Amino acid sequence: MKNSFGNSVSVTLFGESHGAQIGVVIDGLAPGIEVDHDFISSQLSLRRPHGRISTARREADEYSIVSGVFDGKTTGTPVCILIPNCDARSNDYASNRSLARPGHADYSANCKYHGFEDYRGGGHFSGRITAPIVAAGAIALGALAKKGIRIGTHIKKCAGICDRSFDNINDDIATLSCMDFAVLDSDAANKMSEAILVAAAEGDSVGGVLETAIIGVDAGVGEPWFDSVESQLAHILFSIPGIKGVEFGLGFDFADKKGSEANDSFCMSNGKIVTVTNNNGGINGGITNGMPVVFSCVVKPTPSIYKTQATVDFINGVDAQLSLNGRHDPAIIHRARVVVDSVSALVLCDMLAMRYGTDWLRG
Amino acid sequence: MKNSFGNSVSVTLFGESHGAQIGVVIDGLAPGIEVDHDFISSQLSLRRPHGRISTARREADEYSIVSGVFDGKTTGTPVCILIPNCDARSNDYASNRSLARPGHADYSANCKYHGFEDYRGGGHFSGRITAPIVAAGAIALGALAKKGIRIGTHIKKCAGICDRSFDNINDDIATLSCMDFAVLDSDAANKMSEAILVAAAEGDSVGGVLETAIIGVDAGVGEPWFDSVESQLAHILFSIPGIKGVEFGLGFDFADKKGSEANDSFCMSNGKIVTVTNNNGGINGGITNGMPVVFSCVVKPTPSIYKTQATVDFINGVDAQLSLNGRHDPAIIHRARVVVDSVSALVLCDMLAMRYGTDWLRG
Amino acid sequence: MKNSFGNSVSVTLFGESHGAQIGVVIDGLAPGIEVDHDFISSQLSLRRPHGRISTARREADEYSIVSGVFDGKTTGTPVCILIPNCDARSNDYASNRSLARPGHADYSANCKYHGFEDYRGGGHFSGRITAPIVAAGAIALGALAKKGIRIGTHIKKCAGICDRSFDNINDDIATLSCMDFAVLDSDAANKMSEAILVAAAEGDSVGGVLETAIIGVDAGVGEPWFDSVESQLAHILFSIPGIKGVEFGLGFDFADKKGSEANDSFCMSNGKIVTVTNNNGGINGGITNGMPVVFSCVVKPTPSIYKTQATVDFINGVDAQLSLNGRHDPAIIHRARVVVDSVSALVLCDMLAMRYGTDWLRG
Amino acid sequence: MKNSFGNSVSVTLFGESHGAQIGVVIDGLAPGIEVDHDFISSQLSLRRPHGRISTARREADEYSIVSGVFDGKTTGTPVCILIPNCDARSNDYASNRSLARPGHADYSANCKYHGFEDYRGGGHFSGRITAPIVAAGAIALGALAKKGIRIGTHIKKCAGICDRSFDNINDDIATLSCMDFAVLDSDAANKMSEAILVAAAEGDSVGGVLETAIIGVDAGVGEPWFDSVESQLAHILFSIPGIKGVEFGLGFDFADKKGSEANDSFCMSNGKIVTVTNNNGGINGGITNGMPVVFSCVVKPTPSIYKTQATVDFINGVDAQLSLNGRHDPAIIHRARVVVDSVSALVLCDMLAMRYGTDWLRG
Repeated sequence: MKNSFGNSVSVTLFGESHGAQIGVVIDGLAPGIEVDHDFISSQLSLRRPHGRISTARREADEYSIVSGVFDGKTTGTPVCILIPNCDARSNDYASNRSLARPGHADYSANCKYHGFEDYRGGGHFSGRITAPIVAAGAIALGALAKKGIRIGTHIKKCAGICDRSFDNINDDIATLSCMDFAVLDSDAANKMSEAILVAAAEGDSVGGVLETAIIGVDAGVGEPWFDSVESQLAHILFSIPGIKGVEFGLGFDFADKKGSEANDSFCMSNGKIVTVTNNNGGINGGITNGMPVVFSCVVKPTPSIYKTQATVDFINGVDAQLSLNGRHDPAIIHRARVVVDSVSALVLCDMLAMRYGTDWLRG
Repeated sequence: MKNSFGNSVSVTLFGESHGAQIGVVIDGLAPGIEVDHDFISSQLSLRRPHGRISTARREADEYSIVSGVFDGKTTGTPVCILIPNCDARSNDYASNRSLARPGHADYSANCKYHGFEDYRGGGHFSGRITAPIVAAGAIALGALAKKGIRIGTHIKKCAGICDRSFDNINDDIATLSCMDFAVLDSDAANKMSEAILVAAAEGDSVGGVLETAIIGVDAGVGEPWFDSVESQLAHILFSIPGIKGVEFGLGFDFADKKGSEANDSFCMSNGKIVTVTNNNGGINGGITNGMPVVFSCVVKPTPSIYKTQATVDFINGVDAQLSLNGRHDPAIIHRARVVVDSVSALVLCDMLAMRYGTDWLRG
Repeated sequence: MKNSFGNSVSVTLFGESHGAQIGVVIDGLAPGIEVDHDFISSQLSLRRPHGRISTARREADEYSIVSGVFDGKTTGTPVCILIPNCDARSNDYASNRSLARPGHADYSANCKYHGFEDYRGGGHFSGRITAPIVAAGAIALGALAKKGIRIGTHIKKCAGICDRSFDNINDDIATLSCMDFAVLDSDAANKMSEAILVAAAEGDSVGGVLETAIIGVDAGVGEPWFDSVESQLAHILFSIPGIKGVEFGLGFDFADKKGSEANDSFCMSNGKIVTVTNNNGGINGGITNGMPVVFSCVVKPTPSIYKTQATVDFINGVDAQLSLNGRHDPAIIHRARVVVDSVSALVLCDMLAMRYGTDWLRG
Repeated sequence: MKNSFGNSVSVTLFGESHGAQIGVVIDGLAPGIEVDHDFISSQLSLRRPHGRISTARREADEYSIVSGVFDGKTTGTPVCILIPNCDARSNDYASNRSLARPGHADYSANCKYHGFEDYRGGGHFSGRITAPIVAAGAIALGALAKKGIRIGTHIKKCAGICDRSFDNINDDIATLSCMDFAVLDSDAANKMSEAILVAAAEGDSVGGVLETAIIGVDAGVGEPWFDSVESQLAHILFSIPGIKGVEFGLGFDFADKKGSEANDSFCMSNGKIVTVTNNNGGINGGITNGMPVVFSCVVKPTPSIYKTQATVDFINGVDAQLSLNGRHDPAIIHRARVVVDSVSALVLCDMLAMRYGTDWLRG
């Protein structure tokens, strides 16, 4: 249903980059979940551009929750979170209105909406629309944490530089939760930052790969057809702007493995059934097997760059040249990680509420 | 909704590997679509194990259509396709009932269904359940072809051997439609076959990567949130057994590109807006841009191998050894490609019917 | 999604009156539910035409369950139930193909499906398609009964003759479960049968009102917007052929009441909160309040009558006269009651699984 | 999906009576639909309490549209409409917090939400939540009018007094669109107003029946199972607070008709196929037949009355007496009619967009 996602717990998204307000409605959250405003603010702050490696745009993200929360707790009815837009320099965009920015949705949106779309700053396609998702995700993350379910994402690769792999996932998630720039190896972090600054200096941008781990989900969650855990996570992940690939466990590396290398043997460990390796990323047949759920997403380089690009004027149907002004990120991968955590939390809440009932998340 | 997928055009899947019948209900197809039984049979035959590189199991796939087709054409009401199971040697499975086959869903299914699942041959998790999807997909592929939309998939990589890339996609799709073993380069095809036979001889298995192209879809199809073309395709692709990664366009290779390399410039070509490159796989902002939609899926090595594996007896909670008998494929990637074409066709029919209305597909 | 209904527990319906097979897929039922074939058969038998007051058509309803049941219990995967059609005299229908039967869907179906619809015997619109729903409903009714939830329907009114109201609902439901002709007052039953026979003798038909009670549902089930208990029940009830009105509690009689007469006072009774009256039919604000859920449906007179009727030839666009042959029911209300029980059970299973989780129904 | 309804065009509702803001998100509206603020305001004004027969509460309904509209037209992305709450005297409610108001949702909501619900003024169950639906409906009604589809509702019956039936539906709809108190016969209107005032003077309330007609919908819209036109309209109508019955065409009067009286004969009229009568309310087999769609809803008497009522204190589990203060309507039926028009328009937009595609409504 387009801008809604989820069954028992669902999110509905609205807003444009330069409209009056953007926001989200989360429906189906159990009543009695504590809403931690500090955590929401801190998550929004992680998503916001900050530091030298981000755009100079200032996004305040002064959200308000206008429904579904009473006396600091969810009521069980829809939670609407609003974030007003401000500091919007619409004029930066108006002059280029009919020039399709390469890598952006301008042209495909024009084909879909016949010119009625709000073209300013990407409109409804803008990465800015992820801010309300992050606010919603913060509530979900908080509720999951109380049930022992925790989610963490690090930048596995950026501009050709690789972070170390997850090691002790529990500890790594704790470490990541305190980091602005979510790279586990500090040398790699420094090199990535450098590479981003170099790209920025060239008027260019870089992409990367995010790796996410989820711990604490019991075995038996998910569906074989068509709502496998992979299907549901991938569905919502692929709606994040810039994400062009999703893989679980070994992912594309499975292509070079034999079955005998790829299969995860089972064994007993302290009376519990576990797998010796976790090549399948915690999912067998679309269903969790009790091991950490592990997946990676690739984030393409930010399409807004300062180099002059060949394009078309899609209203007049002629070739054209495009030089972008405005303020743009040389990389968004460090900001995207909090969005990945957020959508993962939301889709997990949905799967768990479907399986265990609407009150389960209340604890 | 679990075993149903799609909005305007939907499929509902049922059946177990060793149950009486397996089948699918396709709802929402436009009335008046011709049902080509030869094509359905030929697609089912592509999915069936055949030749030296497949299991010795004989699957007849004598499907019947019991509703929704009248005088050789769809009526507009639900089409139910049934395929009886036969040649089922259930005894091959009963003895190992409580041993979790590594890489399979036995254990996670047991956690989900509490032991009530039909465990024989993977039950509802079996790759056999893709047969009705292929039959349904054949009707969808036929209807799309009449609207100028064509889909083709080749084995881009198998056992470490790479096929050539798509070149002239139109011609390549035509070529692939006649091939049993869908590899564009015949040398690569031979090497892959050899490698599969070597793995088989070792009692092992191999995986690979499939690459799919879809041509003829107009710009403007899809949604920014949450039903991007990527989201909808990935959702259904990830429910195919063995698929552990999906990427669009450059996919994970985006991680090593600069924005200036990754962006697809637009230009006019014969009065039409096209992109010079197609790194984004025909999709910008979740919406088609008129270029071919191109994506890849990784298929993990078949988990059923003849080597002895460590596992657990999940009923008794003890470590165990597993030696599989029965008949198993050393590779399924050549069979999976027709499943990928089929689910892509079904999800496309849905997206197009949502956009253009329920009668559009009738032509 | 058209021929599918439900979220956590859903049904998908297929088939035409004179096609090869009709059937249903029930998805989302908890694993481990016992499937009682005697009860399914007995429910199908109640729906079948029988006795003097029904059509002379013989419908065998030899159903088979081809998936989702293993060792006599549900597996948790989709249950497909098939019923073959036989004794179909298609020739009775072919000659009148383009004459719109008044009160039937022939003309509206032709507008929707552009002539590709299977017109024989009403096709997909036929009341016969309720048979698989009854089979599915029998499984649902059995599962609910084990949780203390029971459903019963009587003919409140037929041909102007009224049955007595529900008195002791628990006992009345038990009584109804044994009745072929579900009328609580035996005098009223006899008079209704007589009136039906009189109408039959005149080549005419009669309608009536069914009243249903559901006991054992805890308070707190349902949603304020848009999935109130009333909304969900009405949605599925209104898809039963011939049902043209649904009311809860006092229903249309509320129009003549004052608030002081209509409101149900609460009181404590044996430490439990109950209402003194049940004018609201067990539902406040769309949510169950713990009292019996009570509603009525009106069933219009069977549109197939033997009297000559004015109509049009919708293919040739001319006025015409229609005289029906074939075998038709002078009343269907006594058969419809088991369909009402069935769809009520299915929608309840869905609401309860949404609230309490997918395993709840297993008990 | 609870607080969302619709497939191609959907609405998502949020807010509580005494929360910060209430609102709605409409998704899937075609791009390019003109947004007529005067019409939205005038519809909101019809829903608002006014005149002597309504509560003394002042509701300003200063709505704002914060997304999905650009340059006065819909963009095709979600339209979020917000209405701030003001003049909320929460203290009126706090003292009675644990006393279940008879006929209201207080007790059932408490069972559902375990005491976390916002209890002030009915919270999310309040009739006030219909205001954003009316604003959304106004956009839908405007779009439909441009396609020749018009909707009108009159008070068919109130406090035992009956209005005349629809006569020339086209003219009657035009007349109703200008009326505050939607009664076609002015004598009946006066008597109803009197009866409402008498009830108000007694501290009591009255209910009634609304009758709605929709003209201009082509034959062929709707689905046989499970999304009949009746099903979809009833689903959304039954979520309006106070509606306890819905009937189409003759509705419950079908119970006393013979088939020969109830069937609508077809005939040719000016080259068009019509029915001579419209007992089926424009719907055969769940599909429109081109005649006006006609249905009625019963609205129960407002449960808030000033007479002392017996109830329970549901927190302490003891019998209690309730005397309401605050400001309450002696009748809501004249306000409910605009809500009925609104939800009918929204569900029609959805059905038409499903059938004809997402761009159809743009005209």
